[in-house]
Amino acid sequence: MNAAIISIGDELLIGQVINSNAAYIAERCNLNGIDIKNILTVGDDIDDIIASFDKYFPECDILITTGGLGPTHDDITRTAICEYFSTKLMENADVKENVKRILALRNIKWTSAADNQSLVPEGCKVIPNKHGTAAGMVFEKGNKYLIVMPGVPFEMKSMVDDFLIPFFKSLNPTQAISHRTLNTTGITESALSDLLGDIEQLTSGASLAFLPAPTGVKLRITHKGYDNQEVLIKLNEIENKIRDKVGNYIYGAEDEDIENIVGNLLSKNDLTIAVAESCTGGLIADRITNVSGASKYFDRGVVTYSNKSKIELLGIPEGLITKHGAVSREVAEAMASGIKNGSHSNIGISTTGIAGPSGGTNEKPVGLVWIGYSNNKITFAEKFLFGDDRLRTKIRASQAALNIVRKKLLGI
Amino acid sequence: MNAAIISIGDELLIGQVINSNAAYIAERCNLNGIDIKNILTVGDDIDDIIASFDKYFPECDILITTGGLGPTHDDITRTAICEYFSTKLMENADVKENVKRILALRNIKWTSAADNQSLVPEGCKVIPNKHGTAAGMVFEKGNKYLIVMPGVPFEMKSMVDDFLIPFFKSLNPTQAISHRTLNTTGITESALSDLLGDIEQLTSGASLAFLPAPTGVKLRITHKGYDNQEVLIKLNEIENKIRDKVGNYIYGAEDEDIENIVGNLLSKNDLTIAVAESCTGGLIADRITNVSGASKYFDRGVVTYSNKSKIELLGIPEGLITKHGAVSREVAEAMASGIKNGSHSNIGISTTGIAGPSGGTNEKPVGLVWIGYSNNKITFAEKFLFGDDRLRTKIRASQAALNIVRKKLLGI
Repeated sequence: MNAAIISIGDELLIGQVINSNAAYIAERCNLNGIDIKNILTVGDDIDDIIASFDKYFPECDILITTGGLGPTHDDITRTAICEYFSTKLMENADVKENVKRILALRNIKWTSAADNQSLVPEGCKVIPNKHGTAAGMVFEKGNKYLIVMPGVPFEMKSMVDDFLIPFFKSLNPTQAISHRTLNTTGITESALSDLLGDIEQLTSGASLAFLPAPTGVKLRITHKGYDNQEVLIKLNEIENKIRDKVGNYIYGAEDEDIENIVGNLLSKNDLTIAVAESCTGGLIADRITNVSGASKYFDRGVVTYSNKSKIELLGIPEGLITKHGAVSREVAEAMASGIKNGSHSNIGISTTGIAGPSGGTNEKPVGLVWIGYSNNKITFAEKFLFGDDRLRTKIRASQAALNIVRKKLLGI
Repeated sequence: MNAAIISIGDELLIGQVINSNAAYIAERCNLNGIDIKNILTVGDDIDDIIASFDKYFPECDILITTGGLGPTHDDITRTAICEYFSTKLMENADVKENVKRILALRNIKWTSAADNQSLVPEGCKVIPNKHGTAAGMVFEKGNKYLIVMPGVPFEMKSMVDDFLIPFFKSLNPTQAISHRTLNTTGITESALSDLLGDIEQLTSGASLAFLPAPTGVKLRITHKGYDNQEVLIKLNEIENKIRDKVGNYIYGAEDEDIENIVGNLLSKNDLTIAVAESCTGGLIADRITNVSGASKYFDRGVVTYSNKSKIELLGIPEGLITKHGAVSREVAEAMASGIKNGSHSNIGISTTGIAGPSGGTNEKPVGLVWIGYSNNKITFAEKFLFGDDRLRTKIRASQAALNIVRKKLLGI
């Protein structure tokens, strides 16, 4: 089966917004056996939207649109659909109920805009919007489907995950396609490729993609066939071969983040953690607390940006900072043991570094980060060089810190 | 004048690469008076590429393609062009010279691939490639232009900046166009629309777009005309009308984030800030420290997730938590004044709430957040309801907290 994506919005045509929505949808379609033939961006113009339906609805099995579903005058996708299908907008009780729910959650009064958001074209099936007022819609005509979603990324993504993927699977029940993503960190793409060696020469039906990001390289294995069981067995074989060669670098699979993995390990071992951050500025605590239920194992964090705060909150001797500098092995170790002891936690971790863009020297360049770890038996710090981009250095340092905790908890 | 962009490459259709090239080109076109009517992504398929030329070359003044100019078998843009214009590939001396230069720089031997990279379709004007072997090309036919560029971002960008923008200016020396983006927070898209009222009915040449995100709604004004000075005056008039009606919600313009605005205000007023976070879990400190130079006004932050940490790090009386609960006005205020006093900062801010997904009650539902503020004269807390998504609640709460600081510093 094939599909086309129509991204609607002037903000895309003037280049103010990069079309990451289309990539998200395209990837999910592709992973579920739907080939994307074209991605088209059109403006907030009713004739252009209808012209795009005219061209792509007959050509494809599935046409997917995003954008233009808000309550303001430049949101005209529903009007275009009514014109294209010669139908009209009707109030939908479920949609109205959802608009009420969302407005109540946000403590917002009902206005004429909310009335408008409660209307959908007659004859559509509604895709519920968990996170916003704009309803998604499915239209079926002659075994073809028009799927309409909002352009707000998190609203669209939740519709794709909760509705679209199960819908694709129901359309194409005989094809077997399986994927597995293994998430690595602490190793570059080329070093991974070298270590994997001849695993890269895969058997027919299988493919391996390297997907690099600041948190690490993801390895995505894909296997296609006609029998689910057989495809899964082959996929597992390839996964096992990869784990044999680079297993220690793999922290998780699929959408697992390292903060989830570390959280599970802490829970399972009945341990608690606390963090003392300088150059990461709160990002490690932020990531740990992104995990629902983190309060079970996360007691506290401190962001000790100034030297004074390192002394006052962590009990670091002023002389240690004077002697070695705030960015040093010694201070990183003292921060990790200081937060561990002060918080009565089992584990303390710390970061101190030069995030940049200024403040670097020949001896201590921008991107230098010391990461400290302390438990009841051992305290140590590791040195990293993360490059000259401030925000990327924060992300890489937070990932490396959580990876040290993971490795210690696993004893690897 | 108008244009369309054709992005060529299978990697875009499977969602492995986000199409940031098209946004780059679209923005540069738009800022130089060329309206982008459509952006189309097609795969590495000769029929699809030719079909896209068939559709868009007659429709537009300018057709811009990127991708498919490499030396491998899936790079077929030049072949498609030859077929479309009924012409053939010819060796070009300048292009060959550039290929030699690039290979020498990279210490690579001349191969048949290099011979191939020296060919361009007959009748084209060459756009030099500073950074790679793939030549750019311009074809003119009946006052229409086909512009062909490589898909490697830095090669394409340098062609846009060095060749395309001067070319556009030469085509259209009289048109004037200006944009302004005003970033709001603390108000919904529909409430903004209601407040703006008849401003939405803009005079000829002007348009207004609403761009919503978890941090707030951006308002983008566009004005076109024939005189730069006049267009700017009209743009300023619209901006002033908008500021008259919703000015207090506007925290910045263009790409400014609220953490930059707050950072500037703190610097300018020679003030320091410290944060005590519960439900935002470090995100406010993380955002404050994303700004380079934040150490001038940010001393420290604490992430007091447990009640014990609130008592130990902020000096909150245990009885206050027992009486009102950790998520309460009283505790938010005590956290804000506690961190202000403990850190010797001028301002303290705090968050305490129920990020969810569990832990909510009828009285204190998921999404409830109290945000505290304290300076040397006043301490108060505000109540918010941010909905049921944990990560979004963290983002919205961090934005609202920084917005309270902004408003207090501005006295609004």
